[in-house]
Amino acid sequence: MIGLGRMGGNMRERLRAAGHEVVGYDPRPEVSDVASLAELAGALAAPRVVWVMVPSGEPTRNTVATLATTLEPGDLVIDGGNSRYTDDQPNAALLDAHGIGYVDCGVSGGIWGKDNGYGLMAGGEPEHIERAMPVFDALRPEGMREEGFAHAGPVGAGHFAKMVHNGIEYGLMQAYAEGFELMEASELITDVPGVIQAWSRGTVVRSWLLDLLVDALKEDPRLDQLEGWVDDSGEGRWTIEEAIAHAVPLPVISAALFARFSSRQAESPAMKAVAALRQQFGGHAVKKSGPAGAPGDKAGPSSGGGSTQQ
Amino acid sequence: MIGLGRMGGNMRERLRAAGHEVVGYDPRPEVSDVASLAELAGALAAPRVVWVMVPSGEPTRNTVATLATTLEPGDLVIDGGNSRYTDDQPNAALLDAHGIGYVDCGVSGGIWGKDNGYGLMAGGEPEHIERAMPVFDALRPEGMREEGFAHAGPVGAGHFAKMVHNGIEYGLMQAYAEGFELMEASELITDVPGVIQAWSRGTVVRSWLLDLLVDALKEDPRLDQLEGWVDDSGEGRWTIEEAIAHAVPLPVISAALFARFSSRQAESPAMKAVAALRQQFGGHAVKKSGPAGAPGDKAGPSSGGGSTQQ
Amino acid sequence: MIGLGRMGGNMRERLRAAGHEVVGYDPRPEVSDVASLAELAGALAAPRVVWVMVPSGEPTRNTVATLATTLEPGDLVIDGGNSRYTDDQPNAALLDAHGIGYVDCGVSGGIWGKDNGYGLMAGGEPEHIERAMPVFDALRPEGMREEGFAHAGPVGAGHFAKMVHNGIEYGLMQAYAEGFELMEASELITDVPGVIQAWSRGTVVRSWLLDLLVDALKEDPRLDQLEGWVDDSGEGRWTIEEAIAHAVPLPVISAALFARFSSRQAESPAMKAVAALRQQFGGHAVKKSGPAGAPGDKAGPSSGGGSTQQ
Amino acid sequence: MIGLGRMGGNMRERLRAAGHEVVGYDPRPEVSDVASLAELAGALAAPRVVWVMVPSGEPTRNTVATLATTLEPGDLVIDGGNSRYTDDQPNAALLDAHGIGYVDCGVSGGIWGKDNGYGLMAGGEPEHIERAMPVFDALRPEGMREEGFAHAGPVGAGHFAKMVHNGIEYGLMQAYAEGFELMEASELITDVPGVIQAWSRGTVVRSWLLDLLVDALKEDPRLDQLEGWVDDSGEGRWTIEEAIAHAVPLPVISAALFARFSSRQAESPAMKAVAALRQQFGGHAVKKSGPAGAPGDKAGPSSGGGSTQQ
Repeated sequence: MIGLGRMGGNMRERLRAAGHEVVGYDPRPEVSDVASLAELAGALAAPRVVWVMVPSGEPTRNTVATLATTLEPGDLVIDGGNSRYTDDQPNAALLDAHGIGYVDCGVSGGIWGKDNGYGLMAGGEPEHIERAMPVFDALRPEGMREEGFAHAGPVGAGHFAKMVHNGIEYGLMQAYAEGFELMEASELITDVPGVIQAWSRGTVVRSWLLDLLVDALKEDPRLDQLEGWVDDSGEGRWTIEEAIAHAVPLPVISAALFARFSSRQAESPAMKAVAALRQQFGGHAVKKSGPAGAPGDKAGPSSGGGSTQQ
Repeated sequence: MIGLGRMGGNMRERLRAAGHEVVGYDPRPEVSDVASLAELAGALAAPRVVWVMVPSGEPTRNTVATLATTLEPGDLVIDGGNSRYTDDQPNAALLDAHGIGYVDCGVSGGIWGKDNGYGLMAGGEPEHIERAMPVFDALRPEGMREEGFAHAGPVGAGHFAKMVHNGIEYGLMQAYAEGFELMEASELITDVPGVIQAWSRGTVVRSWLLDLLVDALKEDPRLDQLEGWVDDSGEGRWTIEEAIAHAVPLPVISAALFARFSSRQAESPAMKAVAALRQQFGGHAVKKSGPAGAPGDKAGPSSGGGSTQQ
Repeated sequence: MIGLGRMGGNMRERLRAAGHEVVGYDPRPEVSDVASLAELAGALAAPRVVWVMVPSGEPTRNTVATLATTLEPGDLVIDGGNSRYTDDQPNAALLDAHGIGYVDCGVSGGIWGKDNGYGLMAGGEPEHIERAMPVFDALRPEGMREEGFAHAGPVGAGHFAKMVHNGIEYGLMQAYAEGFELMEASELITDVPGVIQAWSRGTVVRSWLLDLLVDALKEDPRLDQLEGWVDDSGEGRWTIEEAIAHAVPLPVISAALFARFSSRQAESPAMKAVAALRQQFGGHAVKKSGPAGAPGDKAGPSSGGGSTQQ
Repeated sequence: MIGLGRMGGNMRERLRAAGHEVVGYDPRPEVSDVASLAELAGALAAPRVVWVMVPSGEPTRNTVATLATTLEPGDLVIDGGNSRYTDDQPNAALLDAHGIGYVDCGVSGGIWGKDNGYGLMAGGEPEHIERAMPVFDALRPEGMREEGFAHAGPVGAGHFAKMVHNGIEYGLMQAYAEGFELMEASELITDVPGVIQAWSRGTVVRSWLLDLLVDALKEDPRLDQLEGWVDDSGEGRWTIEEAIAHAVPLPVISAALFARFSSRQAESPAMKAVAALRQQFGGHAVKKSGPAGAPGDKAGPSSGGGSTQQ
């Protein structure tokens, strides 16, 4: 196991708990079992299965490149990180030139996976998948294999499936969030956290994300402790790009992504432009930058009417 | 129990299974226990609790109006249908003038509720809620009351919460659906139903709706038996209207609603207008109505290039 | 002319410049020609044409109600304000009961209409339209009547057309604004105002709104003087509501409206909920409310990778 | 002038009308002035200015590569096609290695440009722009240079600006189209083409695209001759991709692009999935594929109500 952060560290523990022998490597000596990738290779008998769990992009590509010359023919590398699926074919080809197999595996479950098991989507050749199956079985949730693991297709399919999974996740989260906001805005709902908790069982919208929202609202019923600032980590963007490449309309997932972009803007150049246009044609109220106040932030549209709005 | 359709009929069974005495009325004599609302009132000792489970709008309003003169002071009416929350205050006022109480209750769970229990969101005065609590407890899923029932607020709050629930439901369904389509469009994913089933456990996107999608794909792996035609039943529309009234942005839920509208259009006047514009300024290819063919339906954008697109 | 604000005052001038006799009434004595509606009626010989140009909603409805008892049979009232079209039939019926005609007229052109003329869309019975035609001809731009005036349909059609006009306007403005923001975000475009000005002639996107954006950027090349805060005045909301009533998908116009809603939020409850969810499942960075700093506002997605994002 | 299609052919004419000596090359001998690129080079005295107006992507890249070895140091190549801006730096570097200059120029105006002039956005080094200025001046509309031409920035900026221009164009067209559809759906508007024509002057939404819509509706008042099928030619897709790269929210332009994608789908896999889900949880009506009919295509939501929708 290469990379012992929140995901990799937990996965090492889950694998060990299932009886697997695991050697972990991480640049931080306090969590690492070995001092280098070479030492990691030396600590395992061939044929090895090496799980890479490091940040996507450059770090993962570099790790794979190092493994190509550190491992031996017959070994197998699994990239379980959030790599873009387009990295998989090059990685597989590089390793294949050294006789090393490659599987990409999307992993979902977050910090809960250690106990619950991780949902897994793997891409690669059937013989490689089969060899790694004991690892997958240890990582996935207990129960039917088919409900926590899929061989999604050839190399790249695992990360592609994970990318789509995360795109869906963006849409799901935004849907709940919009409902939360609308109930918060209503005078009628006097117990928003209670309503959301009541959706936990029996309803059509029950889900694990809903359970997490219930938990969050128990800690902070109006989410006063948080700012409405939301990062994104690539998969949502890639999902839209992939949709564009295939001419697939994704109005919901793209709206969820754009809402995150907007959430991180202190000021919107686009909305400045709209304000400028309204001022130009109608002399509408705008907010000038600076310490001075604004024309008021109210839910109702300005009455505008005959005198200014036309 | 007034209204013994798929929902009301199942709820009668669930209530009886919990030991409640239930008299059901439905205009269809083959399912009804009594021949009229008057007979229903006569069959129950006062104070009665009458659950109305008929189509929203006119039918529910008419039923409530009839009950106002059929029931007695001290009785309680619960509207468990999908009424718009704006109907609740008038209904409550009408009944109150006759000394009859009123509670609105959003009910979620579909045809599965008979066995799983129904998620419930109620609006009304505390004493009315309390009186109806044994009924709510019989209908909701077993387990903690708070996970299947909420007293959401005053009269109207139950239907408001149910409206938001359904709005969220639109967004969730569309998010899964977009992900399904993108995987279908990809050459990489060779087992789309398998990937979706693998999300059942451990992943961030696991949910009851996902489980239903897994079931649907088991029956029909590419959904070949269905058309992409999706009805809507009011709550999604009301959710958007309510958001507009409160100046709450709902990009995801509105996109989901509009996707349903589009799905029902054999032909889009808007897209005709776009086609007309492109033809006007660039001589771009359009599809003329009629038996003749089209310029080809391909994923890649037309190369257009220097010669036509500008 | 009742209501001598920015619109009504300018229209009085334009009508007088065209040789019409106009008596203006406004509650502000410094701009009003008469002291009351009764005095206004007395100052004109029957049959009168009275143009109402006051804020929509209550003020317009009240003015019409007053005119119903102030004017005489055979007179004609034109509501040129931004009333919702659903107000028109009640207004017409009220006046009709007194033998007074009614026309609703959408007016576009803003503060520029005094010199350029106003685009007009009228609803009402043909004989009423015909009687008011000299007024319409004086207000509309010079040139072909058909290019600045339409009899859109029966009572209500004028305001309906104006509502749609404004809905389109929201979409157009947002489209330009998004393009502006993208160019601002790019390192490549060194002269954003110059590019936008270069679109003024010959291009597909040339328009009056574009000309106004050019003017605004001349005054303030990066719009530093403005905040991205944009009000809305009803028509955009009504357009969406009308679309919902007709099951017409309006993804662009609704997105433009929601962008305005978002622009006025100091904090988004929805995005707080998304942040809360991400924190729950992945331990992702969030911004806590308060004076402390944020995890950085950057364009690139956080690398996240194997350690945290899953 | 290389490439004598609808754009290049017209531009050759406009340049000649302005007194420029132009040699045109096209693979179709019936429109070409010379038989090959070599012959074209031979027909012009150095230093040459060569305008490339061929389809974007491979054809343009190939043409530039050929010119690199056909032209001489000191010559200048202008790519006026719809190339993606990311092609420009490689093209410029390739030519620079041969001492040849490069300018990218976005060109807008469609088939109308021959008479109206073309809106131009150029990217490149100042000395190259200056050398080409007589060409730009002949192609752009008459009037102020700044209103039809901009030096947008370094190499790539011209095509970047054109890409954004086209993205905006998508949004503008969709906004008008949505308004058209809503008026078509309304019973109130009895003269939709008349209303749209009345917007031609004085209104806030007047534009060249609106004028084109007026023309289209004169030919076909309800657009019965067209199908709602709309192609896209790359720039809209690139605009979204660029926005994603810069974390810029583009809700309107993306909605317009997705509407085009949807317009080309005979059947939507996503909406099949939503239909499947509704059937699973509620037994809702779906449309089975095949000759049998549908549950009716109506504007109003199905009453659903208590019996099925929950």
